[in-house]
Amino acid sequence: MAKFYGVGTGPGASDLLTIRGKKIIETVDCLYTPEPKKGGKSLALQIVSPYLKEGLTIKQRHFPMVNDWDEKRNAWNEIAEEIISDVKKGLNVAFVTLGDPMVYSTYSYLLERMIDQIETETVPGISSFCQISNNLQIPLVIDEESYAVLPATANEEIIRTALEQLSTVILMKVSIALPKVLKLLTELNLLEQTILVSDSSMASEKIMIGLNELSEQDHLSYFSTMIVYKNRTLKGS
Amino acid sequence: MAKFYGVGTGPGASDLLTIRGKKIIETVDCLYTPEPKKGGKSLALQIVSPYLKEGLTIKQRHFPMVNDWDEKRNAWNEIAEEIISDVKKGLNVAFVTLGDPMVYSTYSYLLERMIDQIETETVPGISSFCQISNNLQIPLVIDEESYAVLPATANEEIIRTALEQLSTVILMKVSIALPKVLKLLTELNLLEQTILVSDSSMASEKIMIGLNELSEQDHLSYFSTMIVYKNRTLKGS
Repeated sequence: MAKFYGVGTGPGASDLLTIRGKKIIETVDCLYTPEPKKGGKSLALQIVSPYLKEGLTIKQRHFPMVNDWDEKRNAWNEIAEEIISDVKKGLNVAFVTLGDPMVYSTYSYLLERMIDQIETETVPGISSFCQISNNLQIPLVIDEESYAVLPATANEEIIRTALEQLSTVILMKVSIALPKVLKLLTELNLLEQTILVSDSSMASEKIMIGLNELSEQDHLSYFSTMIVYKNRTLKGS
Repeated sequence: MAKFYGVGTGPGASDLLTIRGKKIIETVDCLYTPEPKKGGKSLALQIVSPYLKEGLTIKQRHFPMVNDWDEKRNAWNEIAEEIISDVKKGLNVAFVTLGDPMVYSTYSYLLERMIDQIETETVPGISSFCQISNNLQIPLVIDEESYAVLPATANEEIIRTALEQLSTVILMKVSIALPKVLKLLTELNLLEQTILVSDSSMASEKIMIGLNELSEQDHLSYFSTMIVYKNRTLKGS
């Protein structure tokens, strides 16, 4: 029976995909990829491009990044309907999504529209912050330590509590809430304990260790993540 | 120049390794694997067994799981010295570790003993809780939600704060602190919002959705993880 697969591509390098993810991409009949801007390039598609078989049908679909939830829901409904129809016709279909499919992915909204209609399977991927800590070889947590992952857009008090109580705090989407984040890190005297990485594992990767030089006016790539390492001595900071 | 590679194997299934990790395993001269009990089987070795080349030197080394830090430090020193010596002889060496190398891995202690002595590279792996959420297809976080990862052995107040403030909480190593965890989840009325998974992605995998039936006397596998999903409706609970 035909099936739908959601595959996490990992942070950016093609060889950070799982072997299971690669095998699925190599064998499906049709691949859906998210297109962030109309006509823009799909980064997820670029990541899996070494694994595409000849003649594969690729359907790049636009996911609006807007505040209008009706517009977003309409897009998800349409794309989910199209995938369901492809699978019901007997096609094996994959959808690729950056990082891990279960961590801040629009994929979640597609999945909830399909899960009762067709057979679905979801394959994990390496999250960007995970690659950042492995690349820098600075452990996220050891022994009794704990870490939290929060979007920089979350409630300020929740971020503050995490920064106060946990040993390691990962802040995602920092480009859209930089002033708030810098204010908090300054207040808690954590600027020197923080690493900022943009475009992890991609050719355009940038790493800043210690944020004393960072200003709230600086423009960051959309794929920017901070790791606040309260218990580590950071070299270069 | 010869090099050392730390490779995360992921949670248990051989095809959840990354492509990069697989290539490294396939090409090194010597593979070190952790042996939890003297003479016991290395799970990490079992996971990468499909990728071992013929004639590969495998060095299974014992990491004591005891409370005596001197005994542990002595073992890490010895193993690190042995690896450094192999690499200085010109051998490419890999060490495999379960899940991700930067998340609660004894690998961290080996790495800090080698990082200034030889060239080292660390390759991420899928954490067990990540595979659990993908397998169940229940998102860890969407939109403004946050999650934390804590060892069940952490300070009770820190676990309580995380359970109160964050939308998703992952508790690792629950087998060794089950009474404390069950007490907290009962108090906060979160038993029905919790999933317990043992041996994720392995043949012996067990999943319990909603913990009303779980007793603090129950014996859990060492590889048991809980995910407390405060914002999801769990089927079967």
